[in-house]
Amino acid sequence: MKWINRLIDSVATRGRELLHAEDPSRFDMAYSLQEDCTALLNQRGDAVALAIAQQILDRYVRLSTEEKLSFFQYLARDLSPDYEALGKHAQAMDAEPDARTYRRLLASLRQGRWTLFELLNIPGVGTQALVRMREDLLDHLQENPELKAVDLDLQTILEAWFNRGFLEFREINWHTPADVLEKLIRYEAVHEIQNWQDLKRRLASDRACFAFFHPALPDEPLIFVQVGYTDAVSTAIDPFLDQDQPEVDADQANTAIFYSISNCQKGLRGISFGNFLIKQVVQHIQQNHPHITQFSTLSPIPGLSRALNSEKLDETRLEQLAGNQLGELKERYQVSSLRDLLQHKADKLSVDHAPTVLFIEKLGLAYLTEVKRESEPYDPVARFHLSNGASIFRINAFANCRPYGLKSSYGLMVNYLYDLSRVEQNHEQFKRNGTIDVHRAMRKKLG
Amino acid sequence: MKWINRLIDSVATRGRELLHAEDPSRFDMAYSLQEDCTALLNQRGDAVALAIAQQILDRYVRLSTEEKLSFFQYLARDLSPDYEALGKHAQAMDAEPDARTYRRLLASLRQGRWTLFELLNIPGVGTQALVRMREDLLDHLQENPELKAVDLDLQTILEAWFNRGFLEFREINWHTPADVLEKLIRYEAVHEIQNWQDLKRRLASDRACFAFFHPALPDEPLIFVQVGYTDAVSTAIDPFLDQDQPEVDADQANTAIFYSISNCQKGLRGISFGNFLIKQVVQHIQQNHPHITQFSTLSPIPGLSRALNSEKLDETRLEQLAGNQLGELKERYQVSSLRDLLQHKADKLSVDHAPTVLFIEKLGLAYLTEVKRESEPYDPVARFHLSNGASIFRINAFANCRPYGLKSSYGLMVNYLYDLSRVEQNHEQFKRNGTIDVHRAMRKKLG
Amino acid sequence: MKWINRLIDSVATRGRELLHAEDPSRFDMAYSLQEDCTALLNQRGDAVALAIAQQILDRYVRLSTEEKLSFFQYLARDLSPDYEALGKHAQAMDAEPDARTYRRLLASLRQGRWTLFELLNIPGVGTQALVRMREDLLDHLQENPELKAVDLDLQTILEAWFNRGFLEFREINWHTPADVLEKLIRYEAVHEIQNWQDLKRRLASDRACFAFFHPALPDEPLIFVQVGYTDAVSTAIDPFLDQDQPEVDADQANTAIFYSISNCQKGLRGISFGNFLIKQVVQHIQQNHPHITQFSTLSPIPGLSRALNSEKLDETRLEQLAGNQLGELKERYQVSSLRDLLQHKADKLSVDHAPTVLFIEKLGLAYLTEVKRESEPYDPVARFHLSNGASIFRINAFANCRPYGLKSSYGLMVNYLYDLSRVEQNHEQFKRNGTIDVHRAMRKKLG
Amino acid sequence: MKWINRLIDSVATRGRELLHAEDPSRFDMAYSLQEDCTALLNQRGDAVALAIAQQILDRYVRLSTEEKLSFFQYLARDLSPDYEALGKHAQAMDAEPDARTYRRLLASLRQGRWTLFELLNIPGVGTQALVRMREDLLDHLQENPELKAVDLDLQTILEAWFNRGFLEFREINWHTPADVLEKLIRYEAVHEIQNWQDLKRRLASDRACFAFFHPALPDEPLIFVQVGYTDAVSTAIDPFLDQDQPEVDADQANTAIFYSISNCQKGLRGISFGNFLIKQVVQHIQQNHPHITQFSTLSPIPGLSRALNSEKLDETRLEQLAGNQLGELKERYQVSSLRDLLQHKADKLSVDHAPTVLFIEKLGLAYLTEVKRESEPYDPVARFHLSNGASIFRINAFANCRPYGLKSSYGLMVNYLYDLSRVEQNHEQFKRNGTIDVHRAMRKKLG
Repeated sequence: MKWINRLIDSVATRGRELLHAEDPSRFDMAYSLQEDCTALLNQRGDAVALAIAQQILDRYVRLSTEEKLSFFQYLARDLSPDYEALGKHAQAMDAEPDARTYRRLLASLRQGRWTLFELLNIPGVGTQALVRMREDLLDHLQENPELKAVDLDLQTILEAWFNRGFLEFREINWHTPADVLEKLIRYEAVHEIQNWQDLKRRLASDRACFAFFHPALPDEPLIFVQVGYTDAVSTAIDPFLDQDQPEVDADQANTAIFYSISNCQKGLRGISFGNFLIKQVVQHIQQNHPHITQFSTLSPIPGLSRALNSEKLDETRLEQLAGNQLGELKERYQVSSLRDLLQHKADKLSVDHAPTVLFIEKLGLAYLTEVKRESEPYDPVARFHLSNGASIFRINAFANCRPYGLKSSYGLMVNYLYDLSRVEQNHEQFKRNGTIDVHRAMRKKLG
Repeated sequence: MKWINRLIDSVATRGRELLHAEDPSRFDMAYSLQEDCTALLNQRGDAVALAIAQQILDRYVRLSTEEKLSFFQYLARDLSPDYEALGKHAQAMDAEPDARTYRRLLASLRQGRWTLFELLNIPGVGTQALVRMREDLLDHLQENPELKAVDLDLQTILEAWFNRGFLEFREINWHTPADVLEKLIRYEAVHEIQNWQDLKRRLASDRACFAFFHPALPDEPLIFVQVGYTDAVSTAIDPFLDQDQPEVDADQANTAIFYSISNCQKGLRGISFGNFLIKQVVQHIQQNHPHITQFSTLSPIPGLSRALNSEKLDETRLEQLAGNQLGELKERYQVSSLRDLLQHKADKLSVDHAPTVLFIEKLGLAYLTEVKRESEPYDPVARFHLSNGASIFRINAFANCRPYGLKSSYGLMVNYLYDLSRVEQNHEQFKRNGTIDVHRAMRKKLG
Repeated sequence: MKWINRLIDSVATRGRELLHAEDPSRFDMAYSLQEDCTALLNQRGDAVALAIAQQILDRYVRLSTEEKLSFFQYLARDLSPDYEALGKHAQAMDAEPDARTYRRLLASLRQGRWTLFELLNIPGVGTQALVRMREDLLDHLQENPELKAVDLDLQTILEAWFNRGFLEFREINWHTPADVLEKLIRYEAVHEIQNWQDLKRRLASDRACFAFFHPALPDEPLIFVQVGYTDAVSTAIDPFLDQDQPEVDADQANTAIFYSISNCQKGLRGISFGNFLIKQVVQHIQQNHPHITQFSTLSPIPGLSRALNSEKLDETRLEQLAGNQLGELKERYQVSSLRDLLQHKADKLSVDHAPTVLFIEKLGLAYLTEVKRESEPYDPVARFHLSNGASIFRINAFANCRPYGLKSSYGLMVNYLYDLSRVEQNHEQFKRNGTIDVHRAMRKKLG
Repeated sequence: MKWINRLIDSVATRGRELLHAEDPSRFDMAYSLQEDCTALLNQRGDAVALAIAQQILDRYVRLSTEEKLSFFQYLARDLSPDYEALGKHAQAMDAEPDARTYRRLLASLRQGRWTLFELLNIPGVGTQALVRMREDLLDHLQENPELKAVDLDLQTILEAWFNRGFLEFREINWHTPADVLEKLIRYEAVHEIQNWQDLKRRLASDRACFAFFHPALPDEPLIFVQVGYTDAVSTAIDPFLDQDQPEVDADQANTAIFYSISNCQKGLRGISFGNFLIKQVVQHIQQNHPHITQFSTLSPIPGLSRALNSEKLDETRLEQLAGNQLGELKERYQVSSLRDLLQHKADKLSVDHAPTVLFIEKLGLAYLTEVKRESEPYDPVARFHLSNGASIFRINAFANCRPYGLKSSYGLMVNYLYDLSRVEQNHEQFKRNGTIDVHRAMRKKLG
């Protein structure tokens, strides 16, 4: 146990004793969670504050989903900033700045849930508890938009604590502690890890895995990326998932393929580590394996079938993509519309039929570059990599023909290329003008 | 070099190249520090932002004192929150809460220097740079009260980063790296460390030293405390400062004396680590040296002569403290008033004269318990320990007769006792009612 | 890769280049393993010696079993000490001691395989290679007694290197690197670990596992012991092996049961770590779990059925053990002799039949205390624990009724008690007089 | 305290209790050190053996120099191998090899002091104690040659334990623990370190220091080398010793100068770490500072004046070295012989007088390459570097004009160059033929 956890525990124990001496029923259910919150916000002594904060966290985890929702509504309603005072102080500052008024202004903003969150951030356990609390909160946002202000506060606070300056970068391999490896199995979000044998294959000598950790969440990865060393930019996912795939000699490889990136902490949504992780991994590999000169992802297109179903690409555009081959395709697959084909017969697409291959690769490119949400790509994975400064190197038909691959994206996968000499410039262009860098050969082929 | 520093450096380098490609004069003096700040706040790309942030920090350290003052005034004036918008959004939230408005409200608060400080917090160097910046800023507050709002922002931000959950607790001994030890010599603020030999004596087997560190300031102690193991609560400082003092057998000791506590980072003023450090040290010693059962400080009374000179204790009160011995004291020291005695003849006080000893010990106690500032003790050291929950165990006349001891407090020193079974209760009482716990024997003696 | 491995590799590479320049066929099969050994023993330069030593180790591992035998015979025959010179120098020293002669004497002893082994002990890989070599060698000793002298040399050398001062003591838990855990599965010799789930249960909060490691064999445990925390000295193995056994609260336990001890490196046979490990584990648990006050094994009796089959306990003695119940036992199990019963119907023994229980427990005790080999117990596990100073606390019938438990010891298991206040005295008594400490209650019951 | 020290202590304590129970006078002076040695060699139990071994070590350190000599004589006389038995077993093995006889042969060799040394090697303290014991022993060898056999045994044993596979390589800098740095000050043998300030300068950014450590001697360096980064092969020592020398930019350097190498443990004499250390340092610097491409020492010639005084270079040879300038030199310095000049007026040598410079540089080269001891250079530093495979790059007159430099070598210093592409070949040549590699320019100049 870390020194600070022991210290906190002993201080909180003395706080509990003091509280109990004052009021022996203090830790019964005589008091509600809300009364605890009020007591904590009014408390001046450290030990007692710690005791109550621990109590609040303990009670919280035992709440039902409905009770948690009530708690969040209480935070939104009763523990919001004092907007009236805030407005008054802001006007006063606008008229005549003054440090005392400014202090009051900040206080009126932070007096409620903001301060509560800070007090709950007990070293050793509090940060993790608040990450889990936000995970719960996120489930309610859609149906309870009034909670969004609470979420904004929590995200802002977590953003400060999960400052990238605190991140720990670790290589994950077969020498990594089993409890961490077990969490990789649990958190892998793209291509499920079947068992320990599968995991071991993914950590063999022709693979690598890297993760970020944070001191407040010991042994909990925040994000991890799985890498395979190859001698060309990969066009299909199977070699990375097949446990019996023979190991290749990593010293002969010239390419690193990022074939899976998983965020692990849902409660940290909106706090981005991926860009930073990929750049660090590229730099790390360049330094330790100088013969690796190409860095590319092999990524899914998770929003493709969803976009098609919500008609973000209309039939006219689909026909345009099919071009001259439109008739042949309809006839071959016996469909009246190409949307029908994709929605109902994606598993019938013929890998050997060049026009089919061309059509769905064109479809992929059109989707990635044309379907937008607020001027950025609609596809979340594309948004992520292109915003990082990657370029679209290649679209691969029939790259993931497993059921989940067919369902989400008709088997298509993309190679986003990370070329460090261009990545920052691409990033700037993308941020300023929304420009997407598509590799020339790709443009030409799918033109 | 840590991985993150290397990564940041390489990204910033690419950012600088991009900037240079856009505008080759970018890094000349063509641009002012203020233009850099504006550019940083308007920047969307990461690499370029990093490059400009590094540039700002580099320029800042080369500023003269006057230029720094100008910079702070710019932060206060031009980079303050948008109070007008803040007031408007606060009123809107008061009328009808809404997440989008709340987001704008927060944005109007943070748009200026707050965001600038966050962007300057470059992993690896930024935190330290901002701590030093605040150190500079504090020097100007007295004469430029308009800068207090800037200081408030900076303190609030540093408070979040220097959250105690991140603190590292380390024992300092002769096995500690020399660069850290050298800083102890530099930062010791109570009883100057003369040289390496002096330091070595203070780290011998009958002493101990403990410090807090923070990951963002590697090898920079934040605060440290020096401890001596003894067999009674010490009444004088000399045995701790004498380099030739023979080592006592720590296994025979029953008492730990905290004879010096020094804060190291002026730029973290107002962010308190001392309470936490003392409690941790007590707990650490209890666990590792179970025969140590008493914990006390041997502390200076730094504000005593200052208080007397500013007449916070008037002559009447001094005469009252002298009680029946008033005449004898005046005659013995040939003074017309006791204030005269203390102000001009403190070095003449006679250690063997019981009424003198009693008088100045009474003076010490009266000062500590009666002279207040906003309901708390006027003396900063007393305020610190009593607020932590310590009690006044004993006042010791002629405890530090070195020049600086005579000058500040007529040779008096105090033992503040840390009795873990009472410390939290004392702390609560002190915080709620201002109650000061004075040891019974002391009350009786100095009654 | 450790610094030393890199350094050795680069020196050896230069050595290989030098050799190749002298004789381009040097690394073909032109040279035999024996020629390499001769070359190594005659070599004066470091780099070349390293290159040849690496070459020898590389060739060795590719040998067939027969070729290895030939190699060992070569070591025994051609690389033995120069006994003639040794005898001559010994006589000279006996007559007139002289340092130069003594140097020659030692040289004549070490000139052959001894020096070869030292030269093969290349930092980083050599020690492990020699441990494996001895593993191979041990397989041939029975049929090739002339190899015993080689084994003696190798054991003597390994004993010096595996000096207990170098041992690393580590707690093994679910936070241990997966590659080490995988080796536990491989090396567990008493109660097979079925899979990762089984292993995880054995590392849960009511269990513990401890191992010794050595710097020359990174990530290879030398020996490990599995511990379970209980509230009484256990009488049966099932609770420790059942994966679905609910976890008990270790804080309520008062007893630590050592239920499995496995040596991992066959090539270190005869170099004992077990005694030291058990004492260290006892001390470690006492310090970290002061409520644990009893330490006992739950051990197999591996030699019991073997001893019976080789008639080390004759029928008369068996009948004596059955005592008054002899007739009843023969009749109940329909056997003409008790040996028949044990040899053919051990799985029919009736757990509810008190005389049966008593008979086989008496059998166990008689076997442990009476059947000897060179004045020490015949049973290897008993020899180990009793020599360590443990006492026989209890014999448990029907304690391991799994097939391997019935086969080797008719289901019997023993609790050897480690009482630190008696263990050294027992050890001395056992070493001096062969005295075995049997717990009084046991003596009385099985009297 | 390391786990093993704690364990050993507790076992030894129980051993002492057992001994005390047997014989309460056991730890008085009733027993002699020799009786303790006999008891230890006859002991079978571990705990008692440990207690006696600790007792022996404790007694040993309190012996006077004469008592230590007596003890060593006892080891030489009474605890020597049983040569008679050894001779007998050797003859038996010669006639008919047999494992049992071989075991007895080894036993007769090891039965006395060899076994004693092994038993005294108590983990944690024994190794260090034996290193110190050998340090004492070495002082007596010259006058007591019969002790050389004891030394041979001790050296052989220490050689096995100080196997280079166990060495730890550490960079020493200002971040190194103070207790280690303090030892550098103590052990520096070539150019004395004046104080902490001097040490700090030697660890500044244009310098480096590297050392080997061993796990059995924690925080005790075995050997260390001091390095300076320069832009040319240095010709004089002053820049390295002057505390006020401005720091040069290490990134601009191309040369690493090894300007001081010190062995720290006299008790490990004859066990060589220097060759290995230098190679490792070269490799380490190459990897971390790729712009450093030249590696050279700046070394003293410690045996030069000694050799001259013992006439290893006769007057004729000196005159030959002076060549045509003989007359001029004699006249200038008003001496009748060149030996006179060097022996009595070395401090008068004129740095600006080219013939003087040439003469003493020729003298240096002649001494290094011509004066031999058993076919290797007479000069110990030359023997060391040339045997490592270095070449003589340059001889520098007036390179160390401090008193100790003038006294030992008339101010001369040598650059031994470590060119990794030639070093192993040079080493081989030197070992086989005694060939010394002298740089062509040097040969030509001094030819």
